[in-house]
Amino acid sequence: MKDIDIVKYLAEKKALVDEALKNYFANTNSLFEIMHYSIDRGKRIRPILAIMSFDANGGEDMNIILPVACGLELIHTYSLIHDDLPSMDNDDFRRGKASAHKKFGEAMAILSGDGLFAYAFELFTQGNGLIQEKYSVIKSVSEAVGPKGIVFGQSLDINNEIDATPKSLRRIHVNKTAKFIAVSIKCGAIMARAPEHIIDKSYNAGLYMGILFQYTDDILDIIGEKKKLGKTPGKDVAFGKLTAPAIYGLEGAKFRAERYAELAKTGFSALGERFRILNQITDFILNRTF
Amino acid sequence: MKDIDIVKYLAEKKALVDEALKNYFANTNSLFEIMHYSIDRGKRIRPILAIMSFDANGGEDMNIILPVACGLELIHTYSLIHDDLPSMDNDDFRRGKASAHKKFGEAMAILSGDGLFAYAFELFTQGNGLIQEKYSVIKSVSEAVGPKGIVFGQSLDINNEIDATPKSLRRIHVNKTAKFIAVSIKCGAIMARAPEHIIDKSYNAGLYMGILFQYTDDILDIIGEKKKLGKTPGKDVAFGKLTAPAIYGLEGAKFRAERYAELAKTGFSALGERFRILNQITDFILNRTF
Repeated sequence: MKDIDIVKYLAEKKALVDEALKNYFANTNSLFEIMHYSIDRGKRIRPILAIMSFDANGGEDMNIILPVACGLELIHTYSLIHDDLPSMDNDDFRRGKASAHKKFGEAMAILSGDGLFAYAFELFTQGNGLIQEKYSVIKSVSEAVGPKGIVFGQSLDINNEIDATPKSLRRIHVNKTAKFIAVSIKCGAIMARAPEHIIDKSYNAGLYMGILFQYTDDILDIIGEKKKLGKTPGKDVAFGKLTAPAIYGLEGAKFRAERYAELAKTGFSALGERFRILNQITDFILNRTF
Repeated sequence: MKDIDIVKYLAEKKALVDEALKNYFANTNSLFEIMHYSIDRGKRIRPILAIMSFDANGGEDMNIILPVACGLELIHTYSLIHDDLPSMDNDDFRRGKASAHKKFGEAMAILSGDGLFAYAFELFTQGNGLIQEKYSVIKSVSEAVGPKGIVFGQSLDINNEIDATPKSLRRIHVNKTAKFIAVSIKCGAIMARAPEHIIDKSYNAGLYMGILFQYTDDILDIIGEKKKLGKTPGKDVAFGKLTAPAIYGLEGAKFRAERYAELAKTGFSALGERFRILNQITDFILNRTF
């Protein structure tokens, strides 16, 4: 099997996700309009990962995976909105435009995040999937994005008194980022009704991809360009955050990012030829500039 | 069938809920400790309503309803934490002690709310219930507490430019409060595997109880005592909020509260003798001083 054109693949799947999201935000109330502002213009990495994994596991009906994929994007967006708040990372710029609190004020930003979070779980109950699989998604996602996952990672991330050790760094990376990336891949496998051991192995490879993702995020905070990133670089350093370059230096972080990419690809390769696309996206993440 | 001792019943069920909550917050991480601070000392109205409805519908195994009941309390607590934030209602006092942001700072307050919200959905997947019923609970609750329910109601509630009309008031009351009260009752019926028409009718009667609940909340903001309430009265007036007394006057609001109590009780009475306890709690809410 040959490599496919990853840039084209990403653009196609992004268009699918954007179209589905548009439908989920049509004909609603004033709060939905505010929620939609922040949803607009994402890279859609997590929903695309879910779709990729669904594809790789032989899933065919897009109406099974799209509501789940969109729900993941809603949760990601909610976490960005709350992270950007003045009391958190205080970022005025996100996805190439004013962040939610800058545009609508803090109260509406908080509520629009809360709304996106709840609506994600509503979306997980939509579409052509079976109840058993939808339920598995809800169970897995709620664990990955809650106080044993993203929210815990974020609470460590804003704690300036945390030990500057490799162990603390890994704890932040795994909880803040990797579990969510991994569960996105897991959701694709669940909705394609993959066997249990495939679901578990794709989650484990996804954890490495997720750590890689956060490594590149930490690196781009130093060497990235604001215009490409659509957010403000240099914030980690300004806030004295515990990042991969802070622990390992910039070159050390780059070296380790490559190692995590290898670990992820070894994991996906073991699942068979159809998972080659996940190796390609791993390389794409390793080399990303945005 | 005679009336039961409602005060005793409430105390017993509250103890059950408190005990279950304690277990859900044992042996966890630093974020859970902060989440637990706000969980402590609630009236547990929503979980008790779920248990009452479970009882009334013939449910017996407490390990079916308790995880759901606790999840509802987590969502209620998350909404209180976010409502109390400086950018929202700016309340320093809640459940008889410093509110979360006063105790832990805004960032940790926001995150502890987010954590409680996510953890609630994890709890909905716990316990002895069947997947079909757990899934129904998740679907119903996500709709009631999201951007077509609580979060929408809250967004209207903080909007000072809203029309001071009975219609706007009802929209706030239904979304901010009534849907969540109603869905708590609905969850008890779902987990007891009640027939569809009973589930629907108990939800509808629950909506009236929920409106009643918000009427008494609005009234207690004027006539209640801080010590009994465990929160600061007079905030609605200070913030120029659209409340029942603002539209109908204090006596008008009291009169209408009685009407909503009657509507709720008519609804529950139609479901049979076993639902009498729900009439009793309706009267309890009507007459509450805290």
